[in-house]
Amino acid sequence: MDVRTEISPSEAGTILTVDLEAIVANWQTLRMVCGEAECGAVVKADAYGLGLNPVVKALYEAGCKTFFVAHAFEGRATRAIAPLATIYVLNGMRPNTAPLYADFNLIPVLCSVPEIEDFGQYCAVSKRRTPEGGLLPAAFRLETGLHQLGLKPYDLEHGSHLSHLFDVRLIMTQLARVKHEAVITKQIELFEAMRTTKYAHVPASIAHSGAIFLEANPLYDLVRPGYALYGGNPVPGRPNPMKPVVRLESQVIQVRILEPGERVGEDQSWVARGPRRICTISAGFGDGIPQSLTKTKNGAGGFVISQGKRCPYIGSVGMDLVAVDTSDSGYVERGDIVELIGPTITIDDFAAAAGISGYEALTGLGQRCHRRYQKL
Amino acid sequence: MDVRTEISPSEAGTILTVDLEAIVANWQTLRMVCGEAECGAVVKADAYGLGLNPVVKALYEAGCKTFFVAHAFEGRATRAIAPLATIYVLNGMRPNTAPLYADFNLIPVLCSVPEIEDFGQYCAVSKRRTPEGGLLPAAFRLETGLHQLGLKPYDLEHGSHLSHLFDVRLIMTQLARVKHEAVITKQIELFEAMRTTKYAHVPASIAHSGAIFLEANPLYDLVRPGYALYGGNPVPGRPNPMKPVVRLESQVIQVRILEPGERVGEDQSWVARGPRRICTISAGFGDGIPQSLTKTKNGAGGFVISQGKRCPYIGSVGMDLVAVDTSDSGYVERGDIVELIGPTITIDDFAAAAGISGYEALTGLGQRCHRRYQKL
Repeated sequence: MDVRTEISPSEAGTILTVDLEAIVANWQTLRMVCGEAECGAVVKADAYGLGLNPVVKALYEAGCKTFFVAHAFEGRATRAIAPLATIYVLNGMRPNTAPLYADFNLIPVLCSVPEIEDFGQYCAVSKRRTPEGGLLPAAFRLETGLHQLGLKPYDLEHGSHLSHLFDVRLIMTQLARVKHEAVITKQIELFEAMRTTKYAHVPASIAHSGAIFLEANPLYDLVRPGYALYGGNPVPGRPNPMKPVVRLESQVIQVRILEPGERVGEDQSWVARGPRRICTISAGFGDGIPQSLTKTKNGAGGFVISQGKRCPYIGSVGMDLVAVDTSDSGYVERGDIVELIGPTITIDDFAAAAGISGYEALTGLGQRCHRRYQKL
Repeated sequence: MDVRTEISPSEAGTILTVDLEAIVANWQTLRMVCGEAECGAVVKADAYGLGLNPVVKALYEAGCKTFFVAHAFEGRATRAIAPLATIYVLNGMRPNTAPLYADFNLIPVLCSVPEIEDFGQYCAVSKRRTPEGGLLPAAFRLETGLHQLGLKPYDLEHGSHLSHLFDVRLIMTQLARVKHEAVITKQIELFEAMRTTKYAHVPASIAHSGAIFLEANPLYDLVRPGYALYGGNPVPGRPNPMKPVVRLESQVIQVRILEPGERVGEDQSWVARGPRRICTISAGFGDGIPQSLTKTKNGAGGFVISQGKRCPYIGSVGMDLVAVDTSDSGYVERGDIVELIGPTITIDDFAAAAGISGYEALTGLGQRCHRRYQKL
């Protein structure tokens, strides 16, 4: 069932509003910050859960020429929307998938010697060429300190013996999170040392959303923001330079006055300390609301906004329901809308209250919501 | 983009196998345990993330006659697969949605006086009837201690003045989690007191997956298991009476030997204490792998299974990548398959390692996987 497109606003438990103009504005802001470097866009995981098709369409029409995805199937979906874009597939190349890259004009980011051998062999045997008649394109991902994925110096040396079989268009690496600035500095030194051995003339890319704002950081030729495009703060602890992109709302199903001592939720964790006015809203972990938002007892977790007031989540987050304490809000009734994420509660606030990263929170939203694309 | 159906196994980061025969077997087990009571099936949130269409089809063909969903749109999807089934919509009735219930022959579970008034008014004004010519059906949800949703005794008294406008087919309540057995006992007393005022002749339903196995618990006329159908353990702390239903697998992208002192992941949290053999697998929080699986330092979180050996997650879980320490496993190479959930690591184990509920873990899976339906 792909219920998403069939959900009308009136029957939806949650409504996710995505502001495509804000995504484009964020991309333009990042492009300005980046100066000479080209600004691409990371649209993996369904554009961080916000919808690959509309996001790619908006950015492509705004002039974005380069997209990054994790998987070949995401690359194919991007190609359908952006026929002339450059599309890099970051997660390496699975065995037996080389033809897909040629068929859809996707660029594999080769991460290991076996991948280089695999793709090189395919290029040699198939003799396939780009539409312009050149060798098939590829990129190299260098390992500079995260030890997750990429070529070490000896891998690069080894792999370079096969690199005449394809056209190396980009040299890249993945940096640590911005708070590890000393680590990033070392990563850049290593990256610089590796690329200058043989690939100094090849365009380079290292900067994710956060790294774009690190002042000492070289941006090279191409930057690849993701989270910042979608309104997440790329510089934690400092004011967010990005526009908010998402609003998540839900409906009040029921209003209930509780007496002191009454408990709320399947886990019976929350106890009314005095008379409280509780609302149950039509949202739960089935909508991407983490159960950890209420893990701390008696409301020290997250909040929703009802009539401009912060109302804490209470009890346990169910699959479809969660209660909030609206005692300090105004008159509330069935059908009223509350804000879970939006102008007041940013995606970073929401994630922090749940004890998870903003990336994870954003990507988990909206599988069951009514999703609409309009200006916030 | 609905990428799910387009993802071939060779290019997928994760493969989710759902055993529909096991779901049916679990339903039959539950039906036996329930004796005289009818056994329905809860299929909300896309059948706990496993696919509403195939799950409803399998259960309907096996003889399941009653389905529970949270939202009207889920009810419509269920109706398309199960033309003659009884379908209850649990999350109350949104304003202005009453006609949907009549159009698709769905039964609203009315949770508050405003909902009763709303539905009663619709029935009176529209004069709509069931295909058999009777009043439109409805159910009442009673509030017995969770304080999330349902009618208190005075609401039921009030609402009963309108209940001649529709046909009350079911009286239900939602019980606390099974570890709160004393709470459940009190809930049942209250439920019993409320239903006997006027609705003693109406079929009743109280039991979720866990409550079915509470020995002192009356099951009334209709039980509504969810999590247990999908292989989750309904009796935490005791052997799981259900068959496993899901397997989640991923591919090894890269194998890397680390030297002592080298760190892994964007957050640099994990440090190799000696020479280690690390694999990066093509799965991350974009696939429903919670970042909290590696929150504890140096591998005290979750595990994957590689060649029969438990290999801890290390570093941080990225959107698309996570590293595991395969030093104690056999020879591993690019393209090898590891088990994230399956015969060895149950959905309950996986969730416990991440510090979340099995319900939340299950529902979060598989938005980006290749999903296949076959026997485990």
